[in-house]
Amino acid sequence: MLFFTQCFGAVLDLIHLRFQHYKAKRVFSAAGQLVCVVNPTHSLKYAPTHCAAVQASTEQGILPPCHHHEVVHDPQLVPCTCPLFSCPWEGHLEVVVSHLRQTHRINILQGAEIVFLATDMHLPAPTDWIIMHSCLGHQFLLVLRKQEKYEGHPQFFATMMLIGTPTQANNFTYRLELNRNQRRLKWEATPRSILECVDSVISDGDCLVLNTSLAQLFSDNGSLAIGIAITTSKVHSSEAEM
Amino acid sequence: MLFFTQCFGAVLDLIHLRFQHYKAKRVFSAAGQLVCVVNPTHSLKYAPTHCAAVQASTEQGILPPCHHHEVVHDPQLVPCTCPLFSCPWEGHLEVVVSHLRQTHRINILQGAEIVFLATDMHLPAPTDWIIMHSCLGHQFLLVLRKQEKYEGHPQFFATMMLIGTPTQANNFTYRLELNRNQRRLKWEATPRSILECVDSVISDGDCLVLNTSLAQLFSDNGSLAIGIAITTSKVHSSEAEM
Repeated sequence: MLFFTQCFGAVLDLIHLRFQHYKAKRVFSAAGQLVCVVNPTHSLKYAPTHCAAVQASTEQGILPPCHHHEVVHDPQLVPCTCPLFSCPWEGHLEVVVSHLRQTHRINILQGAEIVFLATDMHLPAPTDWIIMHSCLGHQFLLVLRKQEKYEGHPQFFATMMLIGTPTQANNFTYRLELNRNQRRLKWEATPRSILECVDSVISDGDCLVLNTSLAQLFSDNGSLAIGIAITTSKVHSSEAEM
Repeated sequence: MLFFTQCFGAVLDLIHLRFQHYKAKRVFSAAGQLVCVVNPTHSLKYAPTHCAAVQASTEQGILPPCHHHEVVHDPQLVPCTCPLFSCPWEGHLEVVVSHLRQTHRINILQGAEIVFLATDMHLPAPTDWIIMHSCLGHQFLLVLRKQEKYEGHPQFFATMMLIGTPTQANNFTYRLELNRNQRRLKWEATPRSILECVDSVISDGDCLVLNTSLAQLFSDNGSLAIGIAITTSKVHSSEAEM
């Protein structure tokens, strides 16, 4: 009996996911856009200030990796950049992607434009929705985080990091777009390098920030669809004139 | 001597305003865009909840004006909609614009696309930057407000209201755009009617919301340039397919 109940539950889940998938596809209508359903993960590593020192040195042009442990044996090695876990792994930048995939089971998607469909937005903070995105010959990490900067008032923060150096990151522009209920919100910026800490980017607020009320307006049935596009960066036309 | 000092001060102010004007023009390069320098006003009327009842009835499809006083003598009369002052005036919707201009000295600008340059963003909350915008045969009220929803953490809220009925408001879409430092943030929505309270729109967070850190990234020398465009609304193409 229990087996049949579980089977029925699984089938219902599948139907629900399929339904969400079609719904997101209708919202983001551009042909060929890939819709990816991303489930939440409760963050096990939550230390908002542990990268403050690294952030300071990054601003001075020195670019050490985001240290999760005290001693880095080889300056060419970077620590694990997974925003979810404190992980003792370190390795070369080129193998970060395979580490994140294999050890932390972060999915990777192909395509210049995808739709990131974050489910269960109602879950309490801190919660992360994470995916990797492969495009234009590089890999990017998309992080959506629900966090309480002010106690009792959770907010959503979304940013995109290049799994590469800051110099490489400067060659790209990413765009996050929400579109629902006759409202549209677009954020465009240069991705930050994964060597700068995602925690710092979020605590600086230099990303797409949504209050709960706005997140609700853009959500459908507890899921938030974010359209993502990455392009090689050209200086914004209006700034070029300066 | 005092006279000369004052003259010199006035000339310096003029040069400063002219400089800000050109700077905003360079950022928002589209030919023919009007740049309007808007100075802050410290709000004398600050009652975030006084429209809660009105908001509830508005959601039910009843559309009373936003009551600032207990008794409305004529249901065709609307109270003063100035977000800055508790004003006992009431009159027909058609004369709200002239009341706001003459009594509350709110400037009005012509043009489909303008740049709203809010100065002195560092001033403490609550502070408002307000202007009227005449376009497509209607008048709109643009409100930028600095407010502390969470104590010690001021945020900026920007919205556009039609000086007209909610049915008329549904015919338009407004866009607010920030563009600086290789970052771009766009908010597009249907304007709310001035009969719904600006305080409710802001407390609901159904508007462009900026944290202080993001506002600083988009500011230049303490001034924030917001590109504004109003169009007659067509259902967003992606939603039309639903």
